[in-house]
Amino acid sequence: MAHPARRAQIIGTGLVGGSVGMALRAAGWFVTGSDVDPAHADRALERGAVDAVGTDADADLVVVAAPVGRIPGLVIGALADHPQAAVTDVGSVKAPVVAAVGDPRFVGGHPMAGSEQDGIEGSRPDMFGGAVWVLTPTGHTDPGSYALVHSAISELGADVVTLAPGGHDAVVAMVSHVPHLTAATLMGLAARRSEDQAVLLRLAAGGFRDMTRISAGHPGIWPDICAENSDAIVDVLDELVAELAAVRDIVAGGDRDGLLVRLDEARRARLHLPGPAMRPDGLVELLIPMDDRPGQIAAVTTAATGSGVNIYDIEIAHSTEGERGTLIVLVDAALAGGLVDLLRADGYQVSPRSLG
Amino acid sequence: MAHPARRAQIIGTGLVGGSVGMALRAAGWFVTGSDVDPAHADRALERGAVDAVGTDADADLVVVAAPVGRIPGLVIGALADHPQAAVTDVGSVKAPVVAAVGDPRFVGGHPMAGSEQDGIEGSRPDMFGGAVWVLTPTGHTDPGSYALVHSAISELGADVVTLAPGGHDAVVAMVSHVPHLTAATLMGLAARRSEDQAVLLRLAAGGFRDMTRISAGHPGIWPDICAENSDAIVDVLDELVAELAAVRDIVAGGDRDGLLVRLDEARRARLHLPGPAMRPDGLVELLIPMDDRPGQIAAVTTAATGSGVNIYDIEIAHSTEGERGTLIVLVDAALAGGLVDLLRADGYQVSPRSLG
Repeated sequence: MAHPARRAQIIGTGLVGGSVGMALRAAGWFVTGSDVDPAHADRALERGAVDAVGTDADADLVVVAAPVGRIPGLVIGALADHPQAAVTDVGSVKAPVVAAVGDPRFVGGHPMAGSEQDGIEGSRPDMFGGAVWVLTPTGHTDPGSYALVHSAISELGADVVTLAPGGHDAVVAMVSHVPHLTAATLMGLAARRSEDQAVLLRLAAGGFRDMTRISAGHPGIWPDICAENSDAIVDVLDELVAELAAVRDIVAGGDRDGLLVRLDEARRARLHLPGPAMRPDGLVELLIPMDDRPGQIAAVTTAATGSGVNIYDIEIAHSTEGERGTLIVLVDAALAGGLVDLLRADGYQVSPRSLG
Repeated sequence: MAHPARRAQIIGTGLVGGSVGMALRAAGWFVTGSDVDPAHADRALERGAVDAVGTDADADLVVVAAPVGRIPGLVIGALADHPQAAVTDVGSVKAPVVAAVGDPRFVGGHPMAGSEQDGIEGSRPDMFGGAVWVLTPTGHTDPGSYALVHSAISELGADVVTLAPGGHDAVVAMVSHVPHLTAATLMGLAARRSEDQAVLLRLAAGGFRDMTRISAGHPGIWPDICAENSDAIVDVLDELVAELAAVRDIVAGGDRDGLLVRLDEARRARLHLPGPAMRPDGLVELLIPMDDRPGQIAAVTTAATGSGVNIYDIEIAHSTEGERGTLIVLVDAALAGGLVDLLRADGYQVSPRSLG
């Protein structure tokens, strides 16, 4: 699917915003950047992350890359300043911002990539290659806005995964937020014990180093994340505390079999942890006529994620009758059958069209 | 300090035993290996980990490299079969084996190095370069046996750290055993949650992968380790559960400052985690006459570890009067002063002798 030259606005030219700018420019976009600190935007220009500094009222796509707590206000401002644009963000928590914004042109987003570095100096155009990038459309999301955001992100090399906003927040509490808090807690406990036994940290070998590496990151982002995603984080921490207490009882009671069951389960899961999705050889387009039911795009893309099918590109072909049109999604041919059955069972008309 | 050609016996030619054999051979030792499974010893010979298969009654040094639960019996057998040798082991828990053996020629040991691989196929001669290797002499340890073990390990490129057996066990519970159990618990929790939300593990990015990597290791060694080091592991798990419960309350209560204090503490500690000790440019020998007080070698080497001083080599120069002699330790010249003051305060005569 070829795209004409397009214009993007980056609001917040730090580590992630700068990387998005670099990657969009590499994909042929004209990128304008702004930042609450004008010196940061100027530095982004010097680093080649943007083509221009300022506000581009003609932008097709706006990416808000700011600390979680400031995203809703910036998104609402961006929707007003860019009345034609699709607006997305890169925050780590989605339900509060989606609820606060409530505009069809806003699509919540979260790239699962980053770096221990802060700021534009750590930005690089290949940050998102092979990374998962979550989008969280809702029943009110405008299909054209969603398709534009999805296609742009796919161009950056990321694999788009679609989740409901609350589902995203529960998942990242488990795979990102609680692991971070656990790493910091383990590191803090070891540091306090090393006050009595100075050699303790010299005995910390590779496993301990791996487990605590993320605690070296700058803590500044975490109060916002913990405030915004408090319920999901508390829920996972409660489970983790209960599980560790159970392990404690297993060790105290000398329950060898109980220990082996747990370690075996973890080993199998870790060995099968999925790597970055490979773009398959065979792709197929699914053509799905859209009627006037709300929420079709969220339903279709969330169904794809739920059945393990990656959407490599997405497009809306509008009919001449106005708002109605056809949703075209590009998926792995080998997996398409299950998704087609699922969508047909939900009442969608789906026509596969093989490529080449 | 030059060494005449010496003979070593490896009992247990798996991953660590094979690596010890390879490293000792590279340092000029003649190495004989045995294993409860004769095929494993034959494979060690093929891999070049040993010079011969069998038992060398003339060995100067015996290294027992078997699962933790079988070490005491093998050490007691080795002391009988090798009546002149210094005997050491490579087990992850030290107090129970030291207490069970109770022989002056046995020096408990634990190299803090390894691999996710199992068995001789993962063995390599450079496994211990820059690694910390703990020795746990007691008040009853024979100085000559200790010096032989210490020197041999230093030849393998490891940094020797001396701790009391119980001190070692508390430290490894904190930096190795509980981190392993925590990684497995986190991985198991995520795996169970992924049953409802299949995409969950696709969102597990670098931080989660780092934190759970060690849970991919073979679980077979852990029931023994948890049984032998149960008290210390339970102690650390109790603290970890209490700390995570406190973090949970901080998140639930929206205590931003409390969160930042903990994350800052962890960050500082992680950034200052010591790396492998570098062999300094300036070394000095400390000559310490030994009288007939028991436990001098344990007291001196443990004091060095406690004051952050690495002992790069150690030797006993025997006087002509029999059991008395001089302990010679090679330490960093820049740090020697503090150790000299400490030892003199404890009543030792210490004479520094600069090299070169």
